[in-house]
Amino acid sequence: MFEPKLKEECGVFGIYGNQEAATMTYLGLYSLQHRGQESCGIISSDGNRFYKSIGMGKVTDFFDGEKLESLKGDMAIGHVRYSTTGGTGIVNAQPLSAVYHRGYMAVAHNGNITNAYKIRKELEKEGAIFQSTTDTEIVIHLLARSKAANFTDALIESVSRLEGAFSLLIMTNKKLIAVRDPWGFRPLSLGFVDKGYVVASETTAFDIIEARYIRDIEPGEILIIENNTIRSEKPFPKKKISQCIFELIYFAKPSSMVFHKSVYEFRKNLGKQLAEEDSIVPDIVIPVPDSGRMAALGYAEAKNIRFDEGLIRSHYIGRTFIEPAQKIRDFGAKIKFSPVESVLKGKKVVVIDDSIVRGTTARKIIKMIRAAGAKEIHFRISSPPTISPCYYGIDFPSKEELIANMMSIEEIERYLEVDSMRYISYEGMMKITGESKDLFCTACFNEKYPIEVERKGKSILEENKEKNKKAE
Amino acid sequence: MFEPKLKEECGVFGIYGNQEAATMTYLGLYSLQHRGQESCGIISSDGNRFYKSIGMGKVTDFFDGEKLESLKGDMAIGHVRYSTTGGTGIVNAQPLSAVYHRGYMAVAHNGNITNAYKIRKELEKEGAIFQSTTDTEIVIHLLARSKAANFTDALIESVSRLEGAFSLLIMTNKKLIAVRDPWGFRPLSLGFVDKGYVVASETTAFDIIEARYIRDIEPGEILIIENNTIRSEKPFPKKKISQCIFELIYFAKPSSMVFHKSVYEFRKNLGKQLAEEDSIVPDIVIPVPDSGRMAALGYAEAKNIRFDEGLIRSHYIGRTFIEPAQKIRDFGAKIKFSPVESVLKGKKVVVIDDSIVRGTTARKIIKMIRAAGAKEIHFRISSPPTISPCYYGIDFPSKEELIANMMSIEEIERYLEVDSMRYISYEGMMKITGESKDLFCTACFNEKYPIEVERKGKSILEENKEKNKKAE
Amino acid sequence: MFEPKLKEECGVFGIYGNQEAATMTYLGLYSLQHRGQESCGIISSDGNRFYKSIGMGKVTDFFDGEKLESLKGDMAIGHVRYSTTGGTGIVNAQPLSAVYHRGYMAVAHNGNITNAYKIRKELEKEGAIFQSTTDTEIVIHLLARSKAANFTDALIESVSRLEGAFSLLIMTNKKLIAVRDPWGFRPLSLGFVDKGYVVASETTAFDIIEARYIRDIEPGEILIIENNTIRSEKPFPKKKISQCIFELIYFAKPSSMVFHKSVYEFRKNLGKQLAEEDSIVPDIVIPVPDSGRMAALGYAEAKNIRFDEGLIRSHYIGRTFIEPAQKIRDFGAKIKFSPVESVLKGKKVVVIDDSIVRGTTARKIIKMIRAAGAKEIHFRISSPPTISPCYYGIDFPSKEELIANMMSIEEIERYLEVDSMRYISYEGMMKITGESKDLFCTACFNEKYPIEVERKGKSILEENKEKNKKAE
Amino acid sequence: MFEPKLKEECGVFGIYGNQEAATMTYLGLYSLQHRGQESCGIISSDGNRFYKSIGMGKVTDFFDGEKLESLKGDMAIGHVRYSTTGGTGIVNAQPLSAVYHRGYMAVAHNGNITNAYKIRKELEKEGAIFQSTTDTEIVIHLLARSKAANFTDALIESVSRLEGAFSLLIMTNKKLIAVRDPWGFRPLSLGFVDKGYVVASETTAFDIIEARYIRDIEPGEILIIENNTIRSEKPFPKKKISQCIFELIYFAKPSSMVFHKSVYEFRKNLGKQLAEEDSIVPDIVIPVPDSGRMAALGYAEAKNIRFDEGLIRSHYIGRTFIEPAQKIRDFGAKIKFSPVESVLKGKKVVVIDDSIVRGTTARKIIKMIRAAGAKEIHFRISSPPTISPCYYGIDFPSKEELIANMMSIEEIERYLEVDSMRYISYEGMMKITGESKDLFCTACFNEKYPIEVERKGKSILEENKEKNKKAE
Repeated sequence: MFEPKLKEECGVFGIYGNQEAATMTYLGLYSLQHRGQESCGIISSDGNRFYKSIGMGKVTDFFDGEKLESLKGDMAIGHVRYSTTGGTGIVNAQPLSAVYHRGYMAVAHNGNITNAYKIRKELEKEGAIFQSTTDTEIVIHLLARSKAANFTDALIESVSRLEGAFSLLIMTNKKLIAVRDPWGFRPLSLGFVDKGYVVASETTAFDIIEARYIRDIEPGEILIIENNTIRSEKPFPKKKISQCIFELIYFAKPSSMVFHKSVYEFRKNLGKQLAEEDSIVPDIVIPVPDSGRMAALGYAEAKNIRFDEGLIRSHYIGRTFIEPAQKIRDFGAKIKFSPVESVLKGKKVVVIDDSIVRGTTARKIIKMIRAAGAKEIHFRISSPPTISPCYYGIDFPSKEELIANMMSIEEIERYLEVDSMRYISYEGMMKITGESKDLFCTACFNEKYPIEVERKGKSILEENKEKNKKAE
Repeated sequence: MFEPKLKEECGVFGIYGNQEAATMTYLGLYSLQHRGQESCGIISSDGNRFYKSIGMGKVTDFFDGEKLESLKGDMAIGHVRYSTTGGTGIVNAQPLSAVYHRGYMAVAHNGNITNAYKIRKELEKEGAIFQSTTDTEIVIHLLARSKAANFTDALIESVSRLEGAFSLLIMTNKKLIAVRDPWGFRPLSLGFVDKGYVVASETTAFDIIEARYIRDIEPGEILIIENNTIRSEKPFPKKKISQCIFELIYFAKPSSMVFHKSVYEFRKNLGKQLAEEDSIVPDIVIPVPDSGRMAALGYAEAKNIRFDEGLIRSHYIGRTFIEPAQKIRDFGAKIKFSPVESVLKGKKVVVIDDSIVRGTTARKIIKMIRAAGAKEIHFRISSPPTISPCYYGIDFPSKEELIANMMSIEEIERYLEVDSMRYISYEGMMKITGESKDLFCTACFNEKYPIEVERKGKSILEENKEKNKKAE
Repeated sequence: MFEPKLKEECGVFGIYGNQEAATMTYLGLYSLQHRGQESCGIISSDGNRFYKSIGMGKVTDFFDGEKLESLKGDMAIGHVRYSTTGGTGIVNAQPLSAVYHRGYMAVAHNGNITNAYKIRKELEKEGAIFQSTTDTEIVIHLLARSKAANFTDALIESVSRLEGAFSLLIMTNKKLIAVRDPWGFRPLSLGFVDKGYVVASETTAFDIIEARYIRDIEPGEILIIENNTIRSEKPFPKKKISQCIFELIYFAKPSSMVFHKSVYEFRKNLGKQLAEEDSIVPDIVIPVPDSGRMAALGYAEAKNIRFDEGLIRSHYIGRTFIEPAQKIRDFGAKIKFSPVESVLKGKKVVVIDDSIVRGTTARKIIKMIRAAGAKEIHFRISSPPTISPCYYGIDFPSKEELIANMMSIEEIERYLEVDSMRYISYEGMMKITGESKDLFCTACFNEKYPIEVERKGKSILEENKEKNKKAE
Repeated sequence: MFEPKLKEECGVFGIYGNQEAATMTYLGLYSLQHRGQESCGIISSDGNRFYKSIGMGKVTDFFDGEKLESLKGDMAIGHVRYSTTGGTGIVNAQPLSAVYHRGYMAVAHNGNITNAYKIRKELEKEGAIFQSTTDTEIVIHLLARSKAANFTDALIESVSRLEGAFSLLIMTNKKLIAVRDPWGFRPLSLGFVDKGYVVASETTAFDIIEARYIRDIEPGEILIIENNTIRSEKPFPKKKISQCIFELIYFAKPSSMVFHKSVYEFRKNLGKQLAEEDSIVPDIVIPVPDSGRMAALGYAEAKNIRFDEGLIRSHYIGRTFIEPAQKIRDFGAKIKFSPVESVLKGKKVVVIDDSIVRGTTARKIIKMIRAAGAKEIHFRISSPPTISPCYYGIDFPSKEELIANMMSIEEIERYLEVDSMRYISYEGMMKITGESKDLFCTACFNEKYPIEVERKGKSILEENKEKNKKAE
């Protein structure tokens, strides 16, 4: 009946004190679209009541002028979501909202509450009814049920019960609240625009609406915006800071500052480090566009080798793609990329991407490069081997599907049909993080999970260990 | 009532002898999508009758499995189109088709027939009725009215009457015909797949369906594919070859070979030439993505200066974009690009794009780069000043809107608020074309139009000259 | 925030033990479509989980093969709804559903729970959160919160708290429950099909699926269908039976048996009674089609005068109707009816309808009949003057809009521009009900409301009395 | 390639000199909706250019405020169409339009041009191209090709070539023309509204827009409205007047005057005549609603027997209807009709309909009446046996599907499971037509076709005779 939200990526955006709150939120969500393209939603408040518009698809496809106009008021929160759990549909789309004894309440959530199952079972026992299967809905129930004398106390009481990754935006009739879990898994930043405030998953969302970045919401901080002033609460016990390194490697937009770092520079530095660890001397370095471009630029720069674009990426891909019955080899790669023969023909090529998960797309890309005439192909990945899923808000396949978990380097080289394949080293990657190197969660690379995760009352981490043993 | 098609860009694709002709055409059109996103259409033939599906929007948005399945037969032609003439709608979308005394006929056209007005008036006088305002419709009428004894003679008689730019695909119940005008304005290439043939505006369309490039349709050539064999006719009088240089500079996909040249290398070489003509020594070179990337790579390489990406391009732009009432400065640029502050801050930057038309977007981009902290901005264009519209199938604004026509270099620098602005020289550009330098139409740069164009019976080139005089 | 559902008409349908439960429900709802065309919905159960499809519009417009196929399981409940409360939208559409500690639960409701406001406030105080503004949602909360040991006890405890009009269908994973309030305001009938059971607002819903009528759910009865057997509970204290006489006069379908009476014969008998009370001798009797037809037939039969159709009703009316700017007189009537001049010209006509509410449409119809040449027009209504709204599930305008409340007979005659206008007498109408005459609610005719109604904590009936005083 | 339009029913409407021409046409088409619900279209003219909106579905479903506003100008023609020829789609939807040497031209057609095949072949030989498969398109070509000196001469020359049934509306930039074939098969009436003119298939279309009926367009008349004046031409040779009697029996709306007769009274008189020819004495007379109601009223009146409604017709039927897999007996009738048991139980019933074509629906209706308890059922048809298709604009099944052609009265009685079944006599029907009895086409009843019909160059009437012979 209830399954924890393990396979979901999201972006959140909130704005306070802006007369076009909904349109601003729409623009903010648009610039966070890379964090989820499956559903999107905005709820606004005019102080007395809420206005709501939530649907499937991308922000600019779903919203139109009429919908935005109907979202009245000078305060709003929004959400974009991606989920691989089939048929999740509109029921789980966010923000969630409800009416309770204090008035209206809405919640937008990025992350994964790891003790949601237990709390939900408790709430159901007490008579709570649920509309969705998302872990986010428990936040609303906890707040509605709190016997605390005022809203702030109820809020602190409620979010204190949560464990896991949660960058939350909560809106009531007149308040906007931002909450970041004490581990700090997911980013959340505060900005300033006109005379009001904005909160967003990434700083790049500030650029489009001309907001200025103020600071990050700190791990374990609750920020309450009300009567045009900001108040900060830090009621959580201290936890080991565990910022998601995959945000920097892959998930966030290169134009963002995340965890006080330039995503662009971080990726370029990974490329430089990769070059340093690598003795090969190619004719050219090419990226898998657009994901591998920054690392490829760093790699080429470090080795002083020619950087070129050997693949042209198409940006016209629609929702569905009809494949002919007569099989076209590497169809999935061909609809995304066109090879540039004049660049590749006769060359010894280093191809760079930011990560390799299942390896199926990589294999098709390599074949396409080979077919275009490349003489030698050396595949380089600017992250270490991904060996275990994330339970805190990044959508990975299961252990059995992760190529790094199932094959040795030599096996991968044979599978991909490359002349060589290398990852950046774990230590190399950590070097790039600099002084903040203890502040990251790298569980996908080393299985050191900062918090336990339960599914239907059982520990997922225990399950994983058993799988590991069997595999041995 | 009738206006010649002066503002239209198109791509065409045809296939013969393939059991999934429609799906292959759909894939071919998808890879030609950059040539037009406004409408798309496919007509197929099973030898006895035609099947037709034409609509507004992109290929992957309009077509679905059901539509493709309804397009039966082993032969098909398709068309993608872009038009700035408002409200052209579905009536002018192609391929056009009709039934006439020999059976079915369909036509897909890239280019602009410059004597269409005169021919249409003649046809109307003879009792012809018209459904659209496109110049393409006259091709059908000429073929239907020919008194020639057989189809081939009728075809030759008909297309011989046409002047201007026309890369045409014509389909009858059992034949596929490709025609390229004797000036060779627009590209058209022949390929081979399985046991059948394909014809496409650009070679990149062959990659996705695993077709092999055979050769270009030559200027003035008529290719008739029938009974699984190819026959070539060259009935046209010789004309001065006038290949569109803008296809290489801007319009074609970098992964294509156009006019026997790699588009990618051509653009990169323009960047190198630009560097050679330019004495400035910047800290970094950045492209306006994705259009300026190849030239920027060439420029950086030639000068051995760091190439970086200072702007991240969004690829989620939908059909409509809601702008807030409270003006956001440079909104049009902000929804397309996000600046990377860590790259730009404090730098002396060379920014490269492939062309500058009105200058309005460039101005916004420059402001965005400046706001991100660039110290100096030097804007470079890898084509010469565009001073006059194209009447042969590229959509330019009118003379009065072309910035190069209205402002001096200094005025443009002031308007764009850049530290300096330079174009590549006309001679520099022509050097890059190498041995084939006499084979190009460069009228948009030097007003040397290879053919007269009439609008409502008047000469457009005469009109332009008068405008030039007045402007003096 | 919460407004009681005073302006809503509904129909409900449920089926148990049928392998095509959803399609059967769709057919049942289709035949109840006259009870509400604004929204419709079906929820089915396969014993383990629920499947849900709810949307705006008519049953045959909203549902399609795909939607019905997705509604798996051998049990389902459905709902059709009409509401004049603007913009109620999909949020209030039924059936409502939720997950709670015992599993899934869904509710479809016809009627109006008069003490909903009080219960909702209590529930909110205890921490309940609400998704809709309908009174129906409290049923779910009461059931989820009950501490009773088993479901049946929880059900009895919950519905015992409700006051007002409620013909309810409740579905859990494996049970179908039908509840009818102890006053018996709205109809609810039980049928048998194949080896399973059906429950519907009206018996006509049984015809289309070839179910046989068994009996009515009695006022105050709870029927629990489980393990293919039926169990009946009657836990409510006895109340004065108050069946809605307007179901017989106007709302139900003529082909139904409602409250053990043939709706068709009831209406025809009203016409006969009306004739008996009326001394006029017209040339012809015509109905306002289709609503007045039965009474007109009865009237004509009783007086042995010619019955004819003087107005032809159009059945092509779509959702919206564009009216020209240049005013067309009586437009609203003209799009519904076309006059038959040959019937009306030069005649003394009695026109019969089942009720008159605001009088605006009647006025237009009369004008149309006059324009077609009628010599005299005598308007007859087969129900007594409607002087007060219904708070138990029929949508009436407010007291101030009811013509019978604002004008004397003479004033109405002048307003409608008829030669005479008469209602059936209250006593005449009650005579037709026969032996069961004490079992009806006739509050809309005599303001004798069987139960108090509260709105935002205030008594509506008190408000009305005050209005009456002021009006005096 | 080309098939004559044998299976199409249509309605046409045109208006001249009205500032809301499009909206008026929309209302006119709405009131002609019974003549065709498959597609609809309007073309308007502002004197300089045409505006066009044509689509699938009903008038009020397809048109909206935006579409109507886009149809500028004070002149318009419109068309509604029904066709049983599968997949005819939008290509054949009307009005048709084109640009030719004199300007714009549009045509809306009700009827069937019987020599269309021959003319089309000739036109194709001369180089004409065709967009549709309808016979209407030849009208445009004939007009465009005429060498006549002025438009009127060209018009007369063109329509003089046509044979068959054609009530045509033709619109040019500034003229509205109405043409009725010299046989007068289909109706066409002229009206007056404000200072302008309207032309419509039936007079009922005048009621909704408050136009006054002036007169019918006469058989063989061409009416040219221009410069706000009307001119009449009668260039055709005289033909035997052959008005379609089925318009009066079945097709036209009862509120119309068609061929100078009240459709309502005609049908009622058929019922009276039927009663006169019938000796049975039933308990009640009921119609198949709504088609049989007028005849049933006449029958009951003539015999002085009780008229009642034993079937309630549903008007909520949508485009598609999902049928359960578990067969429901007589499903097609059940979704249309609900039986009124209290009317039918134990009765000797006469059931009346206006025609019987295949007999499949009638059979289901009879079963439903029987299941509701009728003791005896006597089925009466107010038209004679339909033994042959119509080739002039009414959609009948082929000879082999017409029940009257395949079964004797006794066989039909057995098939329908009725106690008796009777048609009105041919002579009886003709008596009702009164003085105008020689002015009708009754070919569907007696195979006396007024004009030859060709299909692919062969005579259809010859084919039929051969079939008749074989059948003997």
